[in-house]
Amino acid sequence: MAKGAFISFEGGEGCGKSTHVKALAEHLKSLGKDCVVTREPGGTPLSEKIRALLLHAKEGSAMTDRAEILLFEAARAQHVEELIKPALEAGKIVVCDRFFDSTTAYQGAARNIPLENVRSLNMFATGGLLPDVTILLDLPASVGMARASARDAGNSDRMGSEKAEFYEAVRSAFLRLASENPNRFVVVDTTRSAGEVFAEILRALSERGII
Amino acid sequence: MAKGAFISFEGGEGCGKSTHVKALAEHLKSLGKDCVVTREPGGTPLSEKIRALLLHAKEGSAMTDRAEILLFEAARAQHVEELIKPALEAGKIVVCDRFFDSTTAYQGAARNIPLENVRSLNMFATGGLLPDVTILLDLPASVGMARASARDAGNSDRMGSEKAEFYEAVRSAFLRLASENPNRFVVVDTTRSAGEVFAEILRALSERGII
Repeated sequence: MAKGAFISFEGGEGCGKSTHVKALAEHLKSLGKDCVVTREPGGTPLSEKIRALLLHAKEGSAMTDRAEILLFEAARAQHVEELIKPALEAGKIVVCDRFFDSTTAYQGAARNIPLENVRSLNMFATGGLLPDVTILLDLPASVGMARASARDAGNSDRMGSEKAEFYEAVRSAFLRLASENPNRFVVVDTTRSAGEVFAEILRALSERGII
Repeated sequence: MAKGAFISFEGGEGCGKSTHVKALAEHLKSLGKDCVVTREPGGTPLSEKIRALLLHAKEGSAMTDRAEILLFEAARAQHVEELIKPALEAGKIVVCDRFFDSTTAYQGAARNIPLENVRSLNMFATGGLLPDVTILLDLPASVGMARASARDAGNSDRMGSEKAEFYEAVRSAFLRLASENPNRFVVVDTTRSAGEVFAEILRALSERGII
């Protein structure tokens, strides 16, 4: 049976994840690779319904931190079992816009949930499945927020309207995860041009024998 | 500050939970007690939305066991923080139709999830909050299923259409929980008349100084 590859993209607001995920998918298809592009929270009908609950929680009925992380993990559990694992078993390359490192960074480091709880929830939801490579698109939080607010032009959802301090904590958490998992993570400086960033992503995947 | 009381009702399909929860609430009100009646999954706007996902999962896009338990726990986390804890702190009596013992019995014992995972998810979602009293309305699964199918007349939801073997496993799991937590649980034999069952519930609550 062919062995697939699981690539996750991580990073804060405005880091260019969507652009590079799309570009990578097109590049993989042009190479004749069988590729599945997906995202978290989401990726299956149930998980997308959970995403809608997460992103559009109404004001005045605030979602608790624990309910929020449990919803992320529910969406993830369904995503892994219904979509990611079967695709990998069929030998496909799965490109995922955010995976469990986002939960560690956002809910764990920047909210009030002990890291050991976040880790055990991540393990439970994924059944232990790890990405083969995680591309961290890194940039200063202030730059990312300026890019994201230009992009969203006032239509930012709940997750996008948090404070600068929160995003700095998220960035630090991602960088800490990368330093703790050097074999899995590739940290890419995205203050450079999109072309340079994409070339570095391709080089990293090539070095790992994925493309 | 007045101290409230937290009463949960547990039991399989057709055990009479809804009837007795309603009767108890009316009785408490007639005694002038400030009482909140709620249910799981549900009890808050977000938790009721999660309940809808749980009960009406579409055929052909099966919900995984892990996604299911994580959704139950997400609904519970919100329920505890937004409704149950504030009510108890205000000195109210909270009567809840199902709480975490249902998760242990249904998802833990009768599905394929290790009990230690179920326990740690329950603890995480509730932040350690336990009912003061848990009324287990016990009856043979075959009797309960016959009652439930007469009641639902073909309109049974996803959780109501599982197999007999599943319900026997659930009953055993509830009885095991009761034997492991004898101070918290009151096991009531519901093969008797509703009047006899209700009298026993009142007696148990009175013995504990709740009414």
